[in-house]
Amino acid sequence: MKPYVVGIDIGGTNTVFGIVDARGTVIASSSIKTAKHPKIEDYIDELYNEVTRLIVANDAVDKINGIGVGAPNANYFTGMIENAPNLIWRGAIPLQQLLEDKFQIPVVITNDANAAAIGEMTYGAARGLKDFIMITLGTGVGSGIVVNGQLVYGHDGFAGELGHMIVKRNNGRLCGCGRSGCLEAYCSATGVARTAREFLEIRTEPSLLRNIPIDQITSKDVYDAAMQGDKLAKDVFEFTGTILGEALADMTVFSSPEAFILFGGLAKSGDLLLKPLKTAMDKSMLNIFKGKPKVLLSELKEADAAVLGASALGWEAKPAE
Amino acid sequence: MKPYVVGIDIGGTNTVFGIVDARGTVIASSSIKTAKHPKIEDYIDELYNEVTRLIVANDAVDKINGIGVGAPNANYFTGMIENAPNLIWRGAIPLQQLLEDKFQIPVVITNDANAAAIGEMTYGAARGLKDFIMITLGTGVGSGIVVNGQLVYGHDGFAGELGHMIVKRNNGRLCGCGRSGCLEAYCSATGVARTAREFLEIRTEPSLLRNIPIDQITSKDVYDAAMQGDKLAKDVFEFTGTILGEALADMTVFSSPEAFILFGGLAKSGDLLLKPLKTAMDKSMLNIFKGKPKVLLSELKEADAAVLGASALGWEAKPAE
Repeated sequence: MKPYVVGIDIGGTNTVFGIVDARGTVIASSSIKTAKHPKIEDYIDELYNEVTRLIVANDAVDKINGIGVGAPNANYFTGMIENAPNLIWRGAIPLQQLLEDKFQIPVVITNDANAAAIGEMTYGAARGLKDFIMITLGTGVGSGIVVNGQLVYGHDGFAGELGHMIVKRNNGRLCGCGRSGCLEAYCSATGVARTAREFLEIRTEPSLLRNIPIDQITSKDVYDAAMQGDKLAKDVFEFTGTILGEALADMTVFSSPEAFILFGGLAKSGDLLLKPLKTAMDKSMLNIFKGKPKVLLSELKEADAAVLGASALGWEAKPAE
Repeated sequence: MKPYVVGIDIGGTNTVFGIVDARGTVIASSSIKTAKHPKIEDYIDELYNEVTRLIVANDAVDKINGIGVGAPNANYFTGMIENAPNLIWRGAIPLQQLLEDKFQIPVVITNDANAAAIGEMTYGAARGLKDFIMITLGTGVGSGIVVNGQLVYGHDGFAGELGHMIVKRNNGRLCGCGRSGCLEAYCSATGVARTAREFLEIRTEPSLLRNIPIDQITSKDVYDAAMQGDKLAKDVFEFTGTILGEALADMTVFSSPEAFILFGGLAKSGDLLLKPLKTAMDKSMLNIFKGKPKVLLSELKEADAAVLGASALGWEAKPAE
């Protein structure tokens, strides 16, 4: 096996990439703008040029075992990106094929949350765990499920959309997916801001958050206010943590994971989120699972995590036949 | 590999067992009363005597590859039955060890719903499927989840308790597990009877079910009334199918199965259950999964299914080291 892998994380705004060694050290990294090229071929060209420059500069030519790519709606089985709402290319993009043709290096793609789970299993908090669920709490809520040491891709490659579990069956919030009551509508950064707005409208008590125009409140504002002791802001986290804890208990009846691993901005809220989460999770847990699943935080540095997660896929890349 | 396996299905009332060949033919079967022996050792003795009698009578001595056992709360990893509410033996019973010591044949145990899933995968509707979820609709609701061709046991061996997904977070029915709002409290045979009682109390219209003492109504009564065109009874199935369909859509975001396979008394209700189920499932389905998971009925004959499911485990039994 060659000593390095390349990780590429394709986000709506930036594409970040890096060269990673077997111990999870990011040797070098860089980025390009994702949305600059309306034509996917032009994007692939620039990406190829910049990644190659990095490989050459770090004396890694012919030392790359594989390229791992994390991208929204990327399908591990088909190698396609299909109708990703955050990307400018429409329809089905044969991303894996385009990259392999260009780089002449084996490429594996999967969605961002699955990449995060594999990264955590390879280099982070999930090392040695065979059954765990990664929950990414960002703008949305993503998930990667590992059962018996293997990522769960399901029949079509799209399994692990736990952000779209229904947590409020009646009168739930509208979700970006078009349905109502999804976990993501409550427990994402966006969800926290929505809860804050709801609380501010329904309740009359003073709050630091009333100093901010209501439509500009972010989850960071809610966190800052809560850390200053703001009651309403703390209640927002209590509400969010409770819903997430109940959802984790519900996920447990499915795959009985050894641990849940939380990643993303909200996961850094500390006890504000984790205390109500653990209380609700324990209270809602089916008896036989009570006290079993741990709640861990990601051990990957946020700046490196996306590249590390994607890169971990590069170790399973096999040369095309 | 030897040509036969023995399947043993331990229920609260009866223990059914049989000799099965590789094509899923039950060569011979018999049963004993489970609850007759307060001491587990006496039960094992009788079971051994009766199974051995069957083996000898069918010229199968030294031809048994393994013994598979399906039992409530049986743990595949530990080989123990732990605190099964329907069995008379309390505490932790080392069932696998007791049986292996007695029979001197390798034994594998798992819970009934997992055994059903393996049976369906080996001999039934799930042949060739690598990702499916088996739902058993009996007195309770059980499940066996198969991902990438493997049964999901989870970290502790107890995964796949989908009957205890919360389908009504607020004001849900009390479940046998002590919590409220579980799928099982609605979509089991017992759940159907409870719904009928609720509807009879809340509504005033005439119904054939009013001829039966309300506390004696069974799911079979509701089925019979619905088949005679009784509106209230049909509404009970509409309600039950809708909740089950919504739950199946929710399960899909987890493992994106190719199919759900329904088994048990209620699964035989035909369109009464399946029509509202499919409508609700389709309506509640996350876009990327819409129209994908099939809903299939078990292909195992009910009389043979428990023994077949358990027996299928006997093919994976390995001699003790």
